Amino acid sequence: MPEILPPDSVGLVTPQTAHFTIPLALDCGRVLPSYDLTYETYGTLNAACSNGVLICHALSGDHHAAGYHSTQDKKPGWWDSAIGPGKPIDTNKFFVVSLNNLGGCKGSTGPVTVNPETGKPFGPDFPIITVRDWVTSQARLGDMLGISQWAAVIGGSLGGMQALQWSIQYPDRLRHCIVIAAAPKLSAQNIAFNEVARQAILSDPEFYAGNYYEYNTVPRRGLMLARMVGHITYLSDDSMRAKFGRELREAKGKLNYGFDEAEFQVESYLRYQGRSFVDRFDANTYLLMTKALDYFDPAADYGDNLTAALKEVQAKFLLISFTSDWRFSSARSREIVKALLDNRKIVSFTEIESPDGHDAFLMPIEPYMQVFEAYMKRVASGVQP
Amino acid sequence: MPEILPPDSVGLVTPQTAHFTIPLALDCGRVLPSYDLTYETYGTLNAACSNGVLICHALSGDHHAAGYHSTQDKKPGWWDSAIGPGKPIDTNKFFVVSLNNLGGCKGSTGPVTVNPETGKPFGPDFPIITVRDWVTSQARLGDMLGISQWAAVIGGSLGGMQALQWSIQYPDRLRHCIVIAAAPKLSAQNIAFNEVARQAILSDPEFYAGNYYEYNTVPRRGLMLARMVGHITYLSDDSMRAKFGRELREAKGKLNYGFDEAEFQVESYLRYQGRSFVDRFDANTYLLMTKALDYFDPAADYGDNLTAALKEVQAKFLLISFTSDWRFSSARSREIVKALLDNRKIVSFTEIESPDGHDAFLMPIEPYMQVFEAYMKRVASGVQP
Repeated sequence: MPEILPPDSVGLVTPQTAHFTIPLALDCGRVLPSYDLTYETYGTLNAACSNGVLICHALSGDHHAAGYHSTQDKKPGWWDSAIGPGKPIDTNKFFVVSLNNLGGCKGSTGPVTVNPETGKPFGPDFPIITVRDWVTSQARLGDMLGISQWAAVIGGSLGGMQALQWSIQYPDRLRHCIVIAAAPKLSAQNIAFNEVARQAILSDPEFYAGNYYEYNTVPRRGLMLARMVGHITYLSDDSMRAKFGRELREAKGKLNYGFDEAEFQVESYLRYQGRSFVDRFDANTYLLMTKALDYFDPAADYGDNLTAALKEVQAKFLLISFTSDWRFSSARSREIVKALLDNRKIVSFTEIESPDGHDAFLMPIEPYMQVFEAYMKRVASGVQP
Repeated sequence: MPEILPPDSVGLVTPQTAHFTIPLALDCGRVLPSYDLTYETYGTLNAACSNGVLICHALSGDHHAAGYHSTQDKKPGWWDSAIGPGKPIDTNKFFVVSLNNLGGCKGSTGPVTVNPETGKPFGPDFPIITVRDWVTSQARLGDMLGISQWAAVIGGSLGGMQALQWSIQYPDRLRHCIVIAAAPKLSAQNIAFNEVARQAILSDPEFYAGNYYEYNTVPRRGLMLARMVGHITYLSDDSMRAKFGRELREAKGKLNYGFDEAEFQVESYLRYQGRSFVDRFDANTYLLMTKALDYFDPAADYGDNLTAALKEVQAKFLLISFTSDWRFSSARSREIVKALLDNRKIVSFTEIESPDGHDAFLMPIEPYMQVFEAYMKRVASGVQP
């Protein structure tokens, strides 16, 4: 944490955990008898309970979206650039709720949680969760907090898919839907990259069919590889060139002619990303998240017709994409825009010029923040006091 | 093999192996005292020894570029679409030489070869080979065959880099240089994908620091992952969509909600590609090939100035790129074209419209074959009988 908190920070925050005892019937056919959701809130819920904003996280995200957990923290939450007093998601105006999704590894019930029925971690026995399941569980969290309708549901990447699913599943429970750097479903290439990540984890001998907790180990190598391949797809060719070029790690500028040492800077960067991810993330959760991505396809229930899937939505939409995002390109956002316009829904769409690839959605790029802020002012103006 | 050989096939071919006893000083500082190169030839060398065409292979290629090894073969050589009587590289006119590169695993000296000094396979002790080393060894093969000047040196991808290196290293030993789907050096993103592939192999417990031969095993999982991630980069998002879409493998159209079975067709395709690669390729060779790619950077010796690097080339050039190739995009070919034009060299460049990504260079796409054939007729017209 910086020595003096910046005035636009939400400051020190404390995660909370809600316990739910109404069984949750999942898409996979199984039922979770009870579960916990860990979440944070920023700002104050108004008397009309009309200023709630739900933040949905992406593949490796969690509930800690803004502020600091302790004075020792070096970094704030993952979307601190967008959430805080005076920021686009203005905590002077909104009551912001950010949760760790079901199946996660940061407090909400997931594979690392001890299964009360067995006294051991769920591990591979944790059911596969879909985006629809998440949205159902998020609606229950809203109920618990007294929020029957969100001013906005907001997410980037896999989080954007949850926002989109909200608009379909609970059309009258959100006034605005903000979908950033997302897609209406994965392409074959997207699924292929997820499959490589999964195979890396599943084939690691220390995965032990998902029961690695019992062996006091983790599939380090597999999870590291999964993160490395994922990370490449979050950046653009251009941003990697700008960041690393073909710079060698050692100033000596000589090639190693060996395999032991990382010699190009991009190699040591990737290895570092992979290694540090292993220390903070669970492999079973990673597997679950990739499946939720692969399975997301709201049009599938409507004869592969996205327009039909979005026919009943009531929210107003903002979609944002980034020029150099090749994981979920602007064309994918335009598919959603088109389907909404086919239904004569109210939709704003901006494509932001950025060299930063898919990761751009997490960055405080000025035109992006301007569009976001202007839209959120419009959201705030519709809030009943 | 088809029951009746097509008239434009080179037919049954037999690989040959040449033994070289003049020590080869390598870029890495080590010396190979002697080595074998396995190669095939198609067509007949003319009296003037002026109709030789050298084919340089890519990452996972070998000497078997055209025809069949036996009547049992299901598939011909890897570039049979381009090599044969009446095909672009017309074996009625040219004497075509195709070799397995040094460090390979298909007959030429490489990690799988028994080191005469130790009586064991070289394994990880095999030196790292550069594109320049390959070209030196290829020139010696040319000497042995009596070819002091090639009518053309031709390659795609990593093979194109070898052709480019030929034009720099032996400017008077080739009349034409044909560089297809290549780049003057890898980008950071390219290196990053190679690094993931290498880490997959190096971290496989069955890699045994490269000495897996002694343990009677192979790093299957690592090599499979390396191939899977590589394969994604050979295809385009569009071609994967066209090939697989989001089609499920089972006709039942139901999701598995599990990790054991491949459920999308793209998953089973990738797994198949990975598995079958393990049966035909050596992991140490794969590592070497990726390093040769990473290290290739002819401009580095000329203050990162590609124009300066190409100043002394004498060959005429044909460059071909493909619109959907995101591994080595058209922009990378244009860098070479620009550097050649800066030097007022003679260069033809065609960008071929294709949805097939990097793999397009191996496919008999009609406009591609037409350009190729027309250019090769020009090459043939300059051949002294």
